[in-house]
Amino acid sequence: MSEPRRRRSADRAGSKAAAIPQLPLRRVRNPYPPMALLSEDQIEAIHEASMHILENFGIELMNVRGLSLLEKAGAKVDHASQTVWLDRGLVAEALKSTQSTYRLTPRNPERTIHLGGDTINFTLVAGPPNVHDMERGRRAGNYRDYCDLVRLAQHFNCIHMIGNQVCAPIEMPANSRHLDTYFANLTLTDKSFHLSAIGRGRALDGIAMMAISRGLTLDQMRDDPAVTTIISVNSPRRFDEAMAEGLMTMAEYGQSVAVTPFTLMGAMSPVTLAGALAQQNAEALFGIVLTQLVHPGAPVMYGAFTSNVDMRSGAPAFGTPENAKANIASGQLARRYNLPYRTTPGSASNAADAQGTYETMMALWGAVLGHGNLVYHAAGWQEGGLTASYEKLILDVEMIQHMMEFLRPIEVDDGELALDALGRVPTGGHFFGEPHTLERYASAFYQPMVSNWQNYEAWQEAGGLDATARATLLWKRALEEYVEPAMDPAIREELEAYMAKRKEEIGVEEP
Amino acid sequence: MSEPRRRRSADRAGSKAAAIPQLPLRRVRNPYPPMALLSEDQIEAIHEASMHILENFGIELMNVRGLSLLEKAGAKVDHASQTVWLDRGLVAEALKSTQSTYRLTPRNPERTIHLGGDTINFTLVAGPPNVHDMERGRRAGNYRDYCDLVRLAQHFNCIHMIGNQVCAPIEMPANSRHLDTYFANLTLTDKSFHLSAIGRGRALDGIAMMAISRGLTLDQMRDDPAVTTIISVNSPRRFDEAMAEGLMTMAEYGQSVAVTPFTLMGAMSPVTLAGALAQQNAEALFGIVLTQLVHPGAPVMYGAFTSNVDMRSGAPAFGTPENAKANIASGQLARRYNLPYRTTPGSASNAADAQGTYETMMALWGAVLGHGNLVYHAAGWQEGGLTASYEKLILDVEMIQHMMEFLRPIEVDDGELALDALGRVPTGGHFFGEPHTLERYASAFYQPMVSNWQNYEAWQEAGGLDATARATLLWKRALEEYVEPAMDPAIREELEAYMAKRKEEIGVEEP
Repeated sequence: MSEPRRRRSADRAGSKAAAIPQLPLRRVRNPYPPMALLSEDQIEAIHEASMHILENFGIELMNVRGLSLLEKAGAKVDHASQTVWLDRGLVAEALKSTQSTYRLTPRNPERTIHLGGDTINFTLVAGPPNVHDMERGRRAGNYRDYCDLVRLAQHFNCIHMIGNQVCAPIEMPANSRHLDTYFANLTLTDKSFHLSAIGRGRALDGIAMMAISRGLTLDQMRDDPAVTTIISVNSPRRFDEAMAEGLMTMAEYGQSVAVTPFTLMGAMSPVTLAGALAQQNAEALFGIVLTQLVHPGAPVMYGAFTSNVDMRSGAPAFGTPENAKANIASGQLARRYNLPYRTTPGSASNAADAQGTYETMMALWGAVLGHGNLVYHAAGWQEGGLTASYEKLILDVEMIQHMMEFLRPIEVDDGELALDALGRVPTGGHFFGEPHTLERYASAFYQPMVSNWQNYEAWQEAGGLDATARATLLWKRALEEYVEPAMDPAIREELEAYMAKRKEEIGVEEP
Repeated sequence: MSEPRRRRSADRAGSKAAAIPQLPLRRVRNPYPPMALLSEDQIEAIHEASMHILENFGIELMNVRGLSLLEKAGAKVDHASQTVWLDRGLVAEALKSTQSTYRLTPRNPERTIHLGGDTINFTLVAGPPNVHDMERGRRAGNYRDYCDLVRLAQHFNCIHMIGNQVCAPIEMPANSRHLDTYFANLTLTDKSFHLSAIGRGRALDGIAMMAISRGLTLDQMRDDPAVTTIISVNSPRRFDEAMAEGLMTMAEYGQSVAVTPFTLMGAMSPVTLAGALAQQNAEALFGIVLTQLVHPGAPVMYGAFTSNVDMRSGAPAFGTPENAKANIASGQLARRYNLPYRTTPGSASNAADAQGTYETMMALWGAVLGHGNLVYHAAGWQEGGLTASYEKLILDVEMIQHMMEFLRPIEVDDGELALDALGRVPTGGHFFGEPHTLERYASAFYQPMVSNWQNYEAWQEAGGLDATARATLLWKRALEEYVEPAMDPAIREELEAYMAKRKEEIGVEEP
């Protein structure tokens, strides 16, 4: 499959067609102080409430190994109801071994992910059952789309990491499809990815295959992590068996975990933001404590996903004012514990339309002002996460790049102040021909890929396509421009052998 | 015209159809500290550069009265070239009489505009030659559309002020159409408006007609202002005859002025943000000084409209990362001089599409984080200001309301922390039926008017309309729901008589 693709790209390059403009690969830093919506007192009140939840209400942990680990550490455990009560002393002690910053290094070290501090990373959408584009419509997730979406994530420099299963390839056996998707992540891209930690096996397979791609042993990778997972909490206050097992496996092997309660206000959480944040904080800290009991120093992030529901229907909503506030306030909580922060810019829109972008912008600004370190589901999320959209992916890349450029500090020096040019151009004149302009114009401003700045008549003559229709053209072109990253054939064979062996062990019959 | 309309609205109210949800009329305050992109040193460097411009390069003022006023105040003036050089001492002295906050009171005092401090006001788009909606397409501005757009501005509480000529009614005589548009502003709405200050006559007519609607004399309104204008600078460094005359007339009569350089980086300004800001600052301060020389204490705002051009074509761009940064940095400059701040959330998109909303969101977040007091052109701006769009107006109202709700501070107290509910809902349960939820759900979250949160299947069954198509339905419904604000018939007659007299004086032949 990859050979003809590579040739097409080469031909295209040969014909000197201009590539889609995009920002170069770079580590994105947020130079501005994080925004504060909560006062110090309010943060402490939310912390206190979350300690009250952990000490008095308890968390259900559906995992025997986890229960005994917590009991041994001094937690009160009721094995019959699988409930754990943590006191604040235990929480504080466990948090001492967490890392405020760490790195994930994939097979291409230029794609290293820095988590914590002022670095922001953006990821491909994860987990939708469906796929949509404007030409082929909505369909169930499948491996062909999986590969194309991952190719798009590789193509765009601003997508720093692959989410977990950008869509579910449902034509493949459920118990082994994670192997095929890992293989696609590792061969079609050279970026880090989020692996599936639903149970021990899926987590271990992802760790092992990433280690093969890097030429490392599992032991070597324990001290030099490469992958992450998101541990979703079954809010309120429940960690299920598979998620708990995945969390512990990742910690055991030194790989990163983002513990992320899904605290939808009014449904799985109180209808009030303060209450939802207290619950989120309790649940996140519980999972974070567990990682440190398994392996002190295990890389772990504070995850947050607090939004609200439509109270008329119970439907989840994203990119709301409440969601934007939660994204900022949750960053304040993450920093209270010196933890890297994972957040999300979602949208509930069923289409890659004006609602899709204004909702994502609301949540994305919240994520950036809140100093998110891992902005998860940042490209391609549609229908509240039920669909991976090709057009939305393109619009999201455009919005991410807007934010990246916004985060470039303003420079003020003699060259930038341009007094020479200002003194030379006459009143009512223009700066087009000024040497100061000519020296800088090629790179002075961000050059968008979706935005159309033609006048109305020229735009009409060119077909009058709206932004969504232009996004269709762009993802098709990006797939043509995509270049598969080179991989040592021996490593590729080793990955294939690992997959084959594991499929045999799992007992998969290839269709 | 208005009678049948009023009856239709009454019928509709009688039939108990649910009104379009919208936020109640309220003064919007920004409770968070303004964002700072520039350091104190950088602000001072820009200030210094702008003083250099005023002292050494000078400003062209095409107005004899203004030139002598400035000369009398101590400025160096060259009458042949109409150039004025201001030294920093004169600038600092004139700035002493400006007001850091002031109010504009229209005929309905509930619609009072507070300028300065932490209050944000949003205005209808001003000045487009064209109009567009998805059903009737693009057409030249006309009085029927003018009135409908102004009705929409009246209907939505979050539009605090009417912009200057939401579209030009080109079928009317150019030298008197300002009278008809003022009449529409004053009778179809009870909000403050931006009047046209192209020359003395247009400004005086707007002031006089607003005074009639309030039952005040011009003298009374001098100390109790009601209207504003935007004085655009012909950047670089030129104030034309009509604009200068308008500025001086407004100041003379105690009405508000926002001096707003249009500093498009790479065209009318240096290609660098620092240079454009230095130029903007010099031009804005020049106009502000002039208002204070005419009438010390005259209400005046620091206006900023710095964006960039597409360097491939020279076309203006809005809602760019550079524009968002300029909106924030300009707020820092306005506050350096303790002046209320006018800014703009523009977009260059030719359609009310995904680009239209992501560009507006970029600039709108900049306006809000920069603590804009008057967010001008906030509803209906399309095609870089060349078209007033009905659908964009609806999308903009939605985005403004999102920001208004974002600006409501998070409350943290026992009721909001919801520990009772958190202790009662079992692990893995839900909060739908909790008393804590039921007591609050009706008003807990912002209820949008455009956003659709149905699941995909229900959305498809309901027609699968995208946000732009839903906006069409909404502006039509809003026009049906619109209620004309009551006006004393004697005042209406007085306005009509003023118009008739002025048209005679101007020498208009009615078509």
